[in-house]
Amino acid sequence: MRIRKKPWAETELAQNSHVMKDAENHRGQWAKHFGNDNPIYVEIGCGKGGFLRKNAQAYPNINFVGIERNLSVVAVAARRTQQELPNLAFVWDDAKKLTDFFAVGEFQRLYLNFSDPWPKKRTYKRRLTYRGYLQSYRDAFGEKGEIFFKTDNRGLFEFSLNEFCADHWQLSRISLDLHNSDYKENIMTEYEEKFSAQGMPIYRLEARYGMEENTKTEQKKHTEHA
Amino acid sequence: MRIRKKPWAETELAQNSHVMKDAENHRGQWAKHFGNDNPIYVEIGCGKGGFLRKNAQAYPNINFVGIERNLSVVAVAARRTQQELPNLAFVWDDAKKLTDFFAVGEFQRLYLNFSDPWPKKRTYKRRLTYRGYLQSYRDAFGEKGEIFFKTDNRGLFEFSLNEFCADHWQLSRISLDLHNSDYKENIMTEYEEKFSAQGMPIYRLEARYGMEENTKTEQKKHTEHA
Repeated sequence: MRIRKKPWAETELAQNSHVMKDAENHRGQWAKHFGNDNPIYVEIGCGKGGFLRKNAQAYPNINFVGIERNLSVVAVAARRTQQELPNLAFVWDDAKKLTDFFAVGEFQRLYLNFSDPWPKKRTYKRRLTYRGYLQSYRDAFGEKGEIFFKTDNRGLFEFSLNEFCADHWQLSRISLDLHNSDYKENIMTEYEEKFSAQGMPIYRLEARYGMEENTKTEQKKHTEHA
Repeated sequence: MRIRKKPWAETELAQNSHVMKDAENHRGQWAKHFGNDNPIYVEIGCGKGGFLRKNAQAYPNINFVGIERNLSVVAVAARRTQQELPNLAFVWDDAKKLTDFFAVGEFQRLYLNFSDPWPKKRTYKRRLTYRGYLQSYRDAFGEKGEIFFKTDNRGLFEFSLNEFCADHWQLSRISLDLHNSDYKENIMTEYEEKFSAQGMPIYRLEARYGMEENTKTEQKKHTEHA
């Protein structure tokens, strides 16, 4: 996400209670931080935080952690979080350090929303759905995990479908036009609001492993209503 | 495929050497019919036969069988097959009878090209990639099989992705815009030529089971060139 540099960014991060200053120290201790044993869902590249704020409000019994490596962007995410949301935290850092921030199995779901498509052929290894990344998510999830992925970039979605399949994830609720689909639970990101208003189709999928039976039930339900 | 009724259709079928008059009698005997043990690839809904004619010319060491239930359409397919192609046969019948025409494992690949999308919600069980059909293809393939599927219909492609995944097929070479992809071996159908000329994107995938290792290698190759 391109954004003008914010001179107040570091001050904002230092003062805002939603920003974790020492995420590594919370590894294995997130339940203590949140004060409960609720599931933890993580968004990599949380941008200005709109998606997680709305989720945190809609699902108070889930804890949400957003990781964003761009200082100015995460500062905007923090500043826009006016309401005190005890189940929301932001981490200013690189998602490559996921396993430094979380013990294996400590979070249960990963969101990848409108990740950088890295459209040039030679940069495919930087795409967050490249199989190298998928393996790192498996390392963090442990025995089971699920990723909810959406993008407006057809090329990235096509690449991601192939990567998830090659790495043997179980896919479901694949949508090639999310906003004209039966998926009603969608919560939009800032980026999604902007681009879907222009009529661009949004692509989405859910990818899982280690939890096949759930998937089958959901899939059946989905198809019957498709 | 909509087509004007051909009064000469039955005569054409009766006289044309590429048309199998008694496909059930060839069950388990196709090698004898073709005079060799070459692999057999089947297209369900072969329409006017252009795809199979071009394949039969390009790959003389593969035998191709097209099944088409519309009399006038398969008559056109036969009439247009001017050149004697010993590795090409048409069957005028319903694909539901696949296991009546072939012994288990007698054919190795199935093509589904631009199948009827049956777009109404309540008709989803008629789509040729509905999981009930996928199971019938498994019954015909036996221990391993592969399906090459393409369509210009986004809704049908989305449905098909979900059905193949729910039925645990291994997908690869998924393309959301085939004619702008790196897939160079594409052979177009009559329908595809018409609609892709209008700039409509063509969707494609390969689905397999029982042959994982091949897939992994191909997939790797594909990604490296993506």
